[in-house]
Amino acid sequence: MSDLKQHIASAFDRDLEGIQARILKMGGLVEEAILDAAKSLETRDEELAGKVVKGDKSIDALDEELNDEAARLIALRQPAASDLRVVLAVMRMSSNLERIGDLSKNMAKRTGVLAQLTQINGSTAALRRMARDVELMLKDALDAYIRRDEALALDVIDRDREVDQMYNTLFREFLTFMLEDPRNITSCMHLHFIAKNVERMGDHVTAIAEEVVFLATGTKPHGVRVKEDRTSSDPALSADIGME
Amino acid sequence: MSDLKQHIASAFDRDLEGIQARILKMGGLVEEAILDAAKSLETRDEELAGKVVKGDKSIDALDEELNDEAARLIALRQPAASDLRVVLAVMRMSSNLERIGDLSKNMAKRTGVLAQLTQINGSTAALRRMARDVELMLKDALDAYIRRDEALALDVIDRDREVDQMYNTLFREFLTFMLEDPRNITSCMHLHFIAKNVERMGDHVTAIAEEVVFLATGTKPHGVRVKEDRTSSDPALSADIGME
Repeated sequence: MSDLKQHIASAFDRDLEGIQARILKMGGLVEEAILDAAKSLETRDEELAGKVVKGDKSIDALDEELNDEAARLIALRQPAASDLRVVLAVMRMSSNLERIGDLSKNMAKRTGVLAQLTQINGSTAALRRMARDVELMLKDALDAYIRRDEALALDVIDRDREVDQMYNTLFREFLTFMLEDPRNITSCMHLHFIAKNVERMGDHVTAIAEEVVFLATGTKPHGVRVKEDRTSSDPALSADIGME
Repeated sequence: MSDLKQHIASAFDRDLEGIQARILKMGGLVEEAILDAAKSLETRDEELAGKVVKGDKSIDALDEELNDEAARLIALRQPAASDLRVVLAVMRMSSNLERIGDLSKNMAKRTGVLAQLTQINGSTAALRRMARDVELMLKDALDAYIRRDEALALDVIDRDREVDQMYNTLFREFLTFMLEDPRNITSCMHLHFIAKNVERMGDHVTAIAEEVVFLATGTKPHGVRVKEDRTSSDPALSADIGME
């Protein structure tokens, strides 16, 4: 390899490290946003909710910087196919992280209105557990990315089924609470909105884990992911509500 | 320009045309999926709903092919910065289209369960109008892309506020129906799920229109987009429900 090529290769690696550092920083901020949003709901902490809403701007900015930097890197360094694959995957991961940040912000924004409404026993604690699971999935997805750990990424994808299951259970519970007492309806509508947000966060984490599998193996994990949104098809949800 | 460079440039243009043809084909399929999903809900047409669910596989496949082709194009042709910007924007547009396809599929999947439940007067017609608006926004966003029409793209972004407003109105209406008669609760929970899906489709169309503005002007339309999800903060939603 000529000195020039050596020089170019190491400049690419250095640029790539910059991008990877940025995605990990973004991942850390998004993990924090998920946890803070869920905590603000449970403890009715409007100050913490405001922090999540404001903090989303930093996540958006990192996503934009990462995209610019990645485009510059591709244009200047003209990476080989395998390096290019990494850059494009990181861009898609960044876009998914940005969406999770948005969803956390939307969740935090409900803190104020929920604090004014009838409390539904245990529901914000259940949502916080669900959010905690999603945050741990994200942590593992990012670890799997750093170590190119296919098994860990597949484990993350698998765990999204549990999150979907938690959503299904909550959907059922909210229905039951509403049917039991109409004063619960408004709260439960907001809580359902939030549960659906957390369920979508799980989908975005799964998309990130799928990129990791792609990077580790060169193929996307087709057929691994089985969606478990039973609320769309289970007649029991309309027939047996409140019968458990 | 040497003959070789001329040859490379035209090969890039040809490849880019292939990618653009694919994104427009994908756009057409996604528009159809939105309309069919909304129609299947209103007419309780489970066969049409099944078509949407099956058709989503073609949309996913196009997204994957487009990503592969774009990566191959970048690696082989090493496009100049301005061409690269187009390719990366098209990849992001494709990813947004793929998500809209997913959301249409999720909407269509509710047809069966809604058909078994209490009908809520006018609600599926309202959802269909909302879906129709989103479909027209998508059509215009794709037209704006072809013509690099900044004004049209900004118009699309602006119209997303109306979709958000329709969502807010529906959220309110569903609450009212539930409070009026608990037998409406299950239906309204499913309808709220669908309304939220359509509202998210509007967000993805907005993201596509933002890419078009970026391509036409070189900058993202910051501050143009004002989110109008009043259900997160408007106290009237909890206090005045049913008082209008």
